[in-house]
Formats: sequence, C-alpha cells, structure tokens
Amino acid sequence: MQLSKPLHVKSLAERFTLKLAGNEDLWITGINEIHKVRRGDLIFVDAPKYYAKSLESTASCILIPEAVSCPEGKTLLVCDAPFEVYNQLVLEARPQRTQKSSISETAWIHPSAIVEANATIGHCAVIGANSTIGANAVIGEFTVIGNGVTIQPGAIVGTDAFYYKKTAHGFRKWRAGGRVVIHDEVEIGAGCTINKGVSGDTVIGRGTKLDCQVHIGHGAVLGQHCLLAAQVGIAGKTVVGDRVVMYGQVGVAQNLTIGNDVTLYAKSGVGKDLEAGKTYFGAPCGEAREMMREMAALRKLAREHQAKPRSGTN
Amino acid sequence: MQLSKPLHVKSLAERFTLKLAGNEDLWITGINEIHKVRRGDLIFVDAPKYYAKSLESTASCILIPEAVSCPEGKTLLVCDAPFEVYNQLVLEARPQRTQKSSISETAWIHPSAIVEANATIGHCAVIGANSTIGANAVIGEFTVIGNGVTIQPGAIVGTDAFYYKKTAHGFRKWRAGGRVVIHDEVEIGAGCTINKGVSGDTVIGRGTKLDCQVHIGHGAVLGQHCLLAAQVGIAGKTVVGDRVVMYGQVGVAQNLTIGNDVTLYAKSGVGKDLEAGKTYFGAPCGEAREMMREMAALRKLAREHQAKPRSGTN
Amino acid sequence: MQLSKPLHVKSLAERFTLKLAGNEDLWITGINEIHKVRRGDLIFVDAPKYYAKSLESTASCILIPEAVSCPEGKTLLVCDAPFEVYNQLVLEARPQRTQKSSISETAWIHPSAIVEANATIGHCAVIGANSTIGANAVIGEFTVIGNGVTIQPGAIVGTDAFYYKKTAHGFRKWRAGGRVVIHDEVEIGAGCTINKGVSGDTVIGRGTKLDCQVHIGHGAVLGQHCLLAAQVGIAGKTVVGDRVVMYGQVGVAQNLTIGNDVTLYAKSGVGKDLEAGKTYFGAPCGEAREMMREMAALRKLAREHQAKPRSGTN
Repeated sequence: MQLSKPLHVKSLAERFTLKLAGNEDLWITGINEIHKVRRGDLIFVDAPKYYAKSLESTASCILIPEAVSCPEGKTLLVCDAPFEVYNQLVLEARPQRTQKSSISETAWIHPSAIVEANATIGHCAVIGANSTIGANAVIGEFTVIGNGVTIQPGAIVGTDAFYYKKTAHGFRKWRAGGRVVIHDEVEIGAGCTINKGVSGDTVIGRGTKLDCQVHIGHGAVLGQHCLLAAQVGIAGKTVVGDRVVMYGQVGVAQNLTIGNDVTLYAKSGVGKDLEAGKTYFGAPCGEAREMMREMAALRKLAREHQAKPRSGTN
Repeated sequence: MQLSKPLHVKSLAERFTLKLAGNEDLWITGINEIHKVRRGDLIFVDAPKYYAKSLESTASCILIPEAVSCPEGKTLLVCDAPFEVYNQLVLEARPQRTQKSSISETAWIHPSAIVEANATIGHCAVIGANSTIGANAVIGEFTVIGNGVTIQPGAIVGTDAFYYKKTAHGFRKWRAGGRVVIHDEVEIGAGCTINKGVSGDTVIGRGTKLDCQVHIGHGAVLGQHCLLAAQVGIAGKTVVGDRVVMYGQVGVAQNLTIGNDVTLYAKSGVGKDLEAGKTYFGAPCGEAREMMREMAALRKLAREHQAKPRSGTN
Repeated sequence: MQLSKPLHVKSLAERFTLKLAGNEDLWITGINEIHKVRRGDLIFVDAPKYYAKSLESTASCILIPEAVSCPEGKTLLVCDAPFEVYNQLVLEARPQRTQKSSISETAWIHPSAIVEANATIGHCAVIGANSTIGANAVIGEFTVIGNGVTIQPGAIVGTDAFYYKKTAHGFRKWRAGGRVVIHDEVEIGAGCTINKGVSGDTVIGRGTKLDCQVHIGHGAVLGQHCLLAAQVGIAGKTVVGDRVVMYGQVGVAQNLTIGNDVTLYAKSGVGKDLEAGKTYFGAPCGEAREMMREMAALRKLAREHQAKPRSGTN
C-alpha cells in the first residue's frame, strides 16, 4: 500500500526505539510485502533464510532482527519484533473503523448507481456510474467499483484477507492494507466472497463474470472477460489471464499464474502454473485430452486386473 | 416465458423494421429458448447450423438473420441482430426494477407467513401460508414460494441466471424472464443460491431439503423429497428426479437428467445422465460399487508397480 | 440439551397417555440423542435393532414402542410414536420464536463488542468482550460467542441442523435443541455457515480461523488453533483435533474423528478417522506421500498401457 503521508526513517527509529543502519535520511512512501515491493517501500523480514532476498529486493527500508551489512542507499531498522512494528504501521495508515450505518458517509456513489435494500457500503468505497449493488450485498471499506458493474444480492466484497502470522500464542492477524478493485462491466454472483489484498489489491478485470458462491482470495488478480462458474475458489495472490474459463467447483492454489485463454473443466484442482491457450482437467489437473486418455487406460487396466486377480506375473 | 399481452408479428416487424416472411397474421403469446419452446412462442436463431432445428421446432415465430424458406403457418422475422431484438422483447415484458424497500409493495405474503429481520422480498414475489423467510435472506422478484416452506437465514433465492452471449466486445447478459418456484414443505439452507430461469422456471419440488451453501443454476428442476447436502452445485437446466440424495460437495453439469432414487456419494462429479435407482461415486462418476472395485484394483496395481519399477515386461 | 426445569416421568406419562415401566419416581434433567447421552437424560428409540444399545446406555428414561424388560433404575415410556413425543418435548424446552428485530432484546452483548450495520443477533445470543459481528452477518438464537472473536460480514452462525426423520409422508425435521459455541479469538470468514447441534453443541475451539464460505455441520467440534481454508465443509458431529490445517475445498464426512496436527491438502475427501500428526491427500484420501507415489505410478502405467494397447499379456 501507498502511504498518504511519507514517514521518515529517523522518526520511526525514535518512536519504536529501533537501531538504524545505512541511509539515515530516507522517506518511506509505502508499506508492502516482499512480492509486491516498490522503491520507497518499507518491508519486514524475520527469518534469516529470507534476509538475502529482502536485502536484494527493491525495498528501500527493511525491518530486520539483526544488524547485518546494509546495501548501498537502503535503510535497516533493527528490532526484536519486525512484524509487530510492520503491522502497527499498517494499522496507523489504515485504522480499523466500525461500520455502523448501512451506507458510510465517506463512500462515494455515482448518482446513476443503484444500491438496493439492506446493502452495506463501507468507508471510502467508490461505486461507478450505472452500477448496481444488489439487496443485502456488502461492499467493504476502500473497495473501488467501476462503471456498469453488477453486484448480485448477498455478495460480500472487500472483507479481510485470510492471512495470519504463526506465533507461540496462536495466529496473529495481518491488518490488510490492500483493497478490492473491480473494473467496468464486471458481474459478481450471489453469495460470492472477495477478500482485500494484504498489501496490494485484489483485482477483477473488465468484463469478467463470476457465477454464484465464487471465492477470490487476497491479492488475486483476474484478467478481462473471464467466466468463472459457481463455487470456484481462487486462493491468494494467484494471477489469472484474460478470457479464462473455469467450470463449476474448480479450485486454484495460491501464488500461481494461469495463462490467457486457459479452460479448466469442472472440479479441477490446480497446484502449478498453467500455460496459455490450453484446456485442463483433473485434481491435480493435467492437459484435458491427456487426462481423459489416462483415465480411460487406467479404467481398462483396472478391469483386466480384476478379471485375473491371481495372475502370477502381474 | 408467457407474455401477459400477445404481440402481433406485423407490429413487431414495423417497430424494429424487420422483413416479415410467411404467416402475416400471427399473435405471439410467449418468448422462449429453443429447448422450452411451445406453440405461439417467438424464438431467435443466429447461427446457420441451428436454422433447421429452429425452423422445425414448435415455435410459431423465428427471429433469423437470413430470409430462408418459411415452414407452413410460421412467421420469419429477418433481422441483422436476432438476439438484440429477442433480449429487448424480454426486457419490455420483464422490465428491470430496483429493490429499494426491504419488502416490495407488489409482493404478496400470506398473513401466517413470517419474514424475519433484514430479509428482502422482491417485486411480485409470492409467499405461501406458514412459510418462514429467515433473517437476511433475499427473495428475488417473481419468486413463488409455497406453503410450509422454510428459507434459512442468508439464503439468496431468485437472482439472475449466469447466462451470457459472447460478442466481439465481451459477454452480453440475457435478461432472465423466468422465475424460481418453490413447492410446499421445502427447506432451503443458509447461504444457498438459487438462480431464476432464463425463459422457463427453476423449480424445487415438494418436500425437498437443501443443506447450507447449495447452488441451483438457472432453469434446473428438482423433484420431490430430495436431500442435497452442503456445498452441492447443480448447473443450469438439469432435471433431477424424485427422492434423489446427494452427499456433500457433489457437482452436476448442465442440461443433464438424473433419474428418480439416485444416490450420489460425496464429491462426485456428474457429466452425463444418470439412471434411476442407482448409486454413483467419483469424478467423473460411475456406479459406486464398480468405482470402488476399480479404485481398489488400481491401488493394488500401483503398489505392485512401485515394488518392481524396472520390470522388463510391465 | 439440559432442561432448565426437570420433568417427572409420571407427569409425562399422564400428559401423553404413555405406559410407564420401571422407575416411577424419576426426574428427567436433559433430552439427548444416543451418542451424547448423560445420566438423567431422556432418549427415544424406534427401531428394534437399536433397543439394546439404548437400554444399555447411560440414559435414565427411554421412549420406546414396545414394553420390553426394563433395566434396573431406569424408566421406560412406551408409546406408538417415540420421535413425535421426543420432538414435542424439545420444542417445549426450546420454542420456535420469530426474529423480528435486528438485535433481539434477549441477546446479551458486551459493551465493548461491535455489531455492524444490517447484522442480526438472535434470541438469547451472548457476545463477549472486544468481539465484532460484521455487516449483514446473522447470529442465530442461543449462540455463545467468546472474547476477541471476529465474525466477518455475511457469515451465518447458528442456523438449523440439516437433520430429518424419514417418514411415509416425507422428511420430518428435528427441532434443534443445541447451540453454536465459539471460543475466544476465533475468526469466522465471510459467507461461512455454522449449524446448531441437534441435542449437543457445535463448538469452534480457541484461536481457530475459518476462511470464507466454510460450512460446519450440526454438532461438529473443532479444536484450538485450526486453520480451515475457503470452501471447506465439515459434516455433522465430526470431531476435529487441535492445530489441524485444511486447504481449500476439503470435505469431511460425518461422525469422524480427525486427530491433532493433521494436515489435509486441497480438495481432499475424508471418509474415515485420521491419525494425529499425519498429512493426507486425495478423495478418498490417504497419506499424502503414499498417494503422490501411487498417482505417479499409475500415470506411468497408463502411459505404458497406451503405448502398447494390443499387448497379448497385459
């Protein structure tokens, strides 16, 4: 997430009593996770095995538990609990606010947009022209909805990421600083759930249509003109190309890349990146034609095997 | 869908400047898709490969892009964009209306029925005697609910069909002219989603019970006294017989017929019609006993194969 | 369920005109199903094959259709329709009440707890300190929510069990006398559904986190610090240990026991008890490493088989 007001590393070091190493005159302009990091961003690292990756990233400032050697121009802030400082900074930039009124007074809704009965519109949400928010739908804080979008009744957009840090005392929740961004002419089915990104945005591309009860995890990015049938689930941070078609109950794991024009048959389970233009099936999935051939071959084998169960050589 | 006021073919030809061929004195009494068509209905066709099927159907009037030979007694309306005219006619018969109040003033609710807090009841919905609409549930426009029906909290009934026409500029949504019809003594679980039919009705038969988070697609027809466990999905226009039992997370593809008294074990995926009285399992599913035998045989084979991985003949 | 006021067996026998055998001076202190029964409880049995199990249970009073021999100290109430009397007694102890106001006047909400817009809080619900009930969420009657709990928007907690008795005229619903009990620091994702227990409680243990669209069936008990990813389903009365991790779209059948520290990979289907500390995969699932090896072996076999389809010996 971008900060609305930059933070100086010295003021941070003072406030949290952190040891500062390297560049002492840096303004931090954003807070991010390692995979979304840009110049000017602060990140944190707490496991030694990720030190190198973090120090070599484009991050300008790193919260780190040890005073390691600092790369040229960057700032290290050494502290015992890097995650706690990180999470505290996100909470200050994005304070938790209660949703007491059905339509927040800080939401911006285009005059041509329609909000139906019992829908809830969160703080700082934006809703474009000719869009419809169906009855009993929930649009969470900071969600951006384009023009000509239809959110069917009972859809829940912009809720918290399912993202926790394991500690000795249980799971600590990351405060989600990201948003959900829905482009023009998208349709979101009844009962869908779309989570905010943790530090980046969850994005639904122009013209994409989601059937009912689809789940989109934190930070996932869907391309344009995709069709996702009912009960499909896409886990966090996965990137889906344009014109992708997923039939019912498909599941896609996190951090994957699905190429353009991929088709996934019903109930497929995806655990690795998929190449553009191809059709897949199965759980774990493979190319559909190959999977069909394999299934037919195995079925034949199984029958032969049952017919001669005591065969000496097989 | 049936039209509340018939349309004369000549007035249509004039209004949309269409070329009229065949019967010049026909009253259109309904608008339909090809698979639901009745005498008196108007349909559309835009791909030459479907011309024959459309012309030979019981439809009385066909919107078609070419002036082909017209069957005896029927009317052809020749136009460049048959779907656009079709969709416009549905929109006129079933104009889109916003749901601003929790309970529409055009809904009809039996005095003995109960509507709980934060529920939304759509335009022209009908709710029978001794039925309960749970908290935060949504009953969409034109939905018909019988007597003694329980809609659990948060269920969403009568939302738009997931049905689009692919165009050069993306997906164009069909205006759904159908309804959801729920017969007596049905129970719909929390978080279920049931879509309206596109031109016909989605039907839930008498005494059928749905657990939570079940999805029923547009125009699907469920028989009497079925039990569908949680997270089952039935795709559009599939017909399910009486006393069918589906365990959790089963998925059924579209346009299929599932016979009476079929049982489907958990997580099964159905891609073809299923015979009455049988028990199925797997994805894609087969008869349960056979599938179990096959699985056992394959497991055995796999173990043997692992034991002698470099075997010359196998 | 515990009765708030004990019932004397003689008064029951008189009111329903039942024949009483055995102990004539017994106070019934609870009503239960056979698998949850405690001393002082009334149960019912209607199939002769379950007579022995019921008579030998710790139940103190048994509704039964035949005057069989009565065990020492217990009471038999002989009646034609034991289930009808049982269900009537549950209905009297837990009468059905309509939820007309968003927040029931009989709910108890800690002053530090937050209830967001359009949420519904049921009769006799209890919500602890620093807990948040998200927008449009539903908390059903008698639900108990601990401290520091977050219920995301649109979650539906404490709805009726999917539990019916088959009769000649269709399915008769059991009145659920149980509750949902959610311990401290639990998080429930958007669109989740959690059913009440039929006679016992559905329990979510301390620190456990549920992603969106998870379903938890009636009477299921989840341990502490579990993580359940999106679209997981747990069927009724299953007991899940501590620190269990389930990836997306896993399904677990009813009446099972899942040990501590079990991990279930995405889309797994569980049909039997699972041992503590192990990792499982597949549907039906097996130990993950073994299943992976089997899949690889079968894939290799299928390819060999395809390469020589007319082989004489295989």
